[in-house]
Amino acid sequence: MEQDNAQWQVIPGGVTAPKGFMAAGLSAGLKASGAPDLALIVSENDAIAAAVYTQSQVRAACVDYCKQQLDEQASARAILCNSGQANACTGQQGWEDAVTMATTAAQVLATNSSEILIASTGVIGQRIKMDPLVAHIPQLAAQLSDQGSDAAAQAILTTDLVTKSYALETNVDGRPIRIGGIAKGSGMIHPNMATMLSFITCDAAVSPTLWQAMLSRAVDQSFNQITVDGDTSTNDTVIALTNGQSRTAAITGPGPAADQLEAMLTEVCIYLAKSIARDGEGATCLIEVNVSGSSTAADARKIARTIASSSLVKSAIFGRDPNWGRIAGAAGRAGVTLDQSNIMIKLGSFILLDHGQPQPFDHQGAHAYLKACAIDHKPGATESLANPVRITVAVGEGPGKGQAWGCDLSYDYVKINAEYTT
Amino acid sequence: MEQDNAQWQVIPGGVTAPKGFMAAGLSAGLKASGAPDLALIVSENDAIAAAVYTQSQVRAACVDYCKQQLDEQASARAILCNSGQANACTGQQGWEDAVTMATTAAQVLATNSSEILIASTGVIGQRIKMDPLVAHIPQLAAQLSDQGSDAAAQAILTTDLVTKSYALETNVDGRPIRIGGIAKGSGMIHPNMATMLSFITCDAAVSPTLWQAMLSRAVDQSFNQITVDGDTSTNDTVIALTNGQSRTAAITGPGPAADQLEAMLTEVCIYLAKSIARDGEGATCLIEVNVSGSSTAADARKIARTIASSSLVKSAIFGRDPNWGRIAGAAGRAGVTLDQSNIMIKLGSFILLDHGQPQPFDHQGAHAYLKACAIDHKPGATESLANPVRITVAVGEGPGKGQAWGCDLSYDYVKINAEYTT
Repeated sequence: MEQDNAQWQVIPGGVTAPKGFMAAGLSAGLKASGAPDLALIVSENDAIAAAVYTQSQVRAACVDYCKQQLDEQASARAILCNSGQANACTGQQGWEDAVTMATTAAQVLATNSSEILIASTGVIGQRIKMDPLVAHIPQLAAQLSDQGSDAAAQAILTTDLVTKSYALETNVDGRPIRIGGIAKGSGMIHPNMATMLSFITCDAAVSPTLWQAMLSRAVDQSFNQITVDGDTSTNDTVIALTNGQSRTAAITGPGPAADQLEAMLTEVCIYLAKSIARDGEGATCLIEVNVSGSSTAADARKIARTIASSSLVKSAIFGRDPNWGRIAGAAGRAGVTLDQSNIMIKLGSFILLDHGQPQPFDHQGAHAYLKACAIDHKPGATESLANPVRITVAVGEGPGKGQAWGCDLSYDYVKINAEYTT
Repeated sequence: MEQDNAQWQVIPGGVTAPKGFMAAGLSAGLKASGAPDLALIVSENDAIAAAVYTQSQVRAACVDYCKQQLDEQASARAILCNSGQANACTGQQGWEDAVTMATTAAQVLATNSSEILIASTGVIGQRIKMDPLVAHIPQLAAQLSDQGSDAAAQAILTTDLVTKSYALETNVDGRPIRIGGIAKGSGMIHPNMATMLSFITCDAAVSPTLWQAMLSRAVDQSFNQITVDGDTSTNDTVIALTNGQSRTAAITGPGPAADQLEAMLTEVCIYLAKSIARDGEGATCLIEVNVSGSSTAADARKIARTIASSSLVKSAIFGRDPNWGRIAGAAGRAGVTLDQSNIMIKLGSFILLDHGQPQPFDHQGAHAYLKACAIDHKPGATESLANPVRITVAVGEGPGKGQAWGCDLSYDYVKINAEYTT
């Protein structure tokens, strides 16, 4: 767990931490492995809904479905998500399966199908196993509880090694507001299991336009800043529901309450995004890149993302090699105008380059620093985001700052992605 | 060797195939290995010079030097290139070393230093070993010969396994015109050995503006369409000299002669680019992506490049896995508007996806096809570009067509790039 911030505190409960949310997850038999593969998140009342989707031109049916629903009305009661099959490249039949998912869930939950959002993750080009999915929805609904977040977090995974879950609580005018979230791995995407999903819940009362704007900005600083192998998926989706059950004053425009809520939403998204990067396929460490000194935050984020996604930087980190030349090279090709004589590069606390000039540094010490950042993959090892490889880059005196996260490129990445046979 | 085309024939001699060019290469002691590391290409007379450089904001001194020279006058007599040290991130001292390279070569060749272009490749952040370099220029000049192309091609290599050389001859108005070229590897860039270099010579008489336009377009279709790991270098440079010694009519504007020359220049660039992709670090096969049906050629090239650079596609090919989902996914995220129901994907002769729908295909046959495309790395094996893995993608009915080349992502790529220690 990250350290608590004075503005908010970490609380248990994931997506069921906010008031009025329940969740469940079970094995419906969609995955050959028998692992959990069907998740449901429900708000007791209609929640304001916002979403951000993959920018890919090849999109799964569920993405188009959610987009169509939320374009008509920015509210929802539930999210139904299956893993095992992505329902992408499945044509008209895929669309019909998406509709069936929503209508079946609506029937069981006794609500309108326009109140159901759906998501899928798994093998591209395969139809969802609809019979077992439909047959298991009543049981799934029966298992809904305010303790069900972990079961749901488990059921949305594909090749992830660990579940990703986080929740924070803050006070607005003396009353608590909570945001919770779960996510599944992406980035180093498994063979065809190409999806980053995150579902976020909140009990504040927020106007739909503002909630969507907050989510879009939070995603730009979090999920859009993680990179595992540069491949964007057909199914990537972030959905955020906020149901007003905190009974705090409605947040309808800019102000301290809106700022506080957005900061906390961003923090939840960043935590989940880092969890995804850390769990990238074959990853042996989490990499955090901090860029400052550019003209704009967007430029800083672009440079950070380019460094975090460079195969050369990633394989150097896997080799525990303090190779600043690759970091400088990646910064230079990020598509941002730079004066190379202003570049400073730091790895942990080791200054490798200053004013564009190589600096003498303790190679053995830097190598040892990289080794010490390795993730402990032993069963039972504490999941921690506290120990990333920190790459710090300054490119000038401008006000722009940005972060990105990634993981190293290991033999296991190639192995996982090469040895699969369709 | 590629098959001859009716328009031109393959000839030996590399950069010395065109009339009036000489070349040489030797070991000056810049590389610790003792391998050749200093190359010189000279035209008997002033040649029209064009160049294309890295787009990176972090550039080696030699790149800035050539740019400054050619901005003042688009002509040159010689190219001096060292390998071993990149002279990038070397500040003012690096600039002075670049100037010294040019002035020393000019003295020895008894010409003006403004007629000398320079290039470097090797470790970023290291000064060139100037004493041995300067000391060896007279000997290098003494070895210049019209048989010296292979020695030069050898001396510009860093981690490349093989030299890259090609030359073509065509007839314009009954007289021969020749274009030759050498190149060095890039893409799967060695630890800090980050450079793609190509030097091209021609004996046609062409106006400077037209020659630059021809080279820029040829590079867009060739060197800019190869991708090994997506990392652009600090030193990437293509220089093309044309000296008019064919004594054919000067080509000063559009017309059949210009078209013929540009087609041949493009062909030489494509051959060299493919040779670089095939020799990517750890590559076990060359991948050729053909995209058609987009609105513009630029769109088709963008899609082709995105597919060829996808880590997921590359690792699937290494695993000999006909994984069309990854190809579709890469096409979808190329930043080109697509209708996914129009996408067709072929691997060799196997149709994997049609109108956006998965097709039944012979998995074993496709797997065997991929296996059969593997490069024979045995010493003495014939270097051949004839047997790439062919990925064909149609995205609609538009006139746009484009190609890109890459190689697979193997364990050896990670090994080569992780196990280096600065």
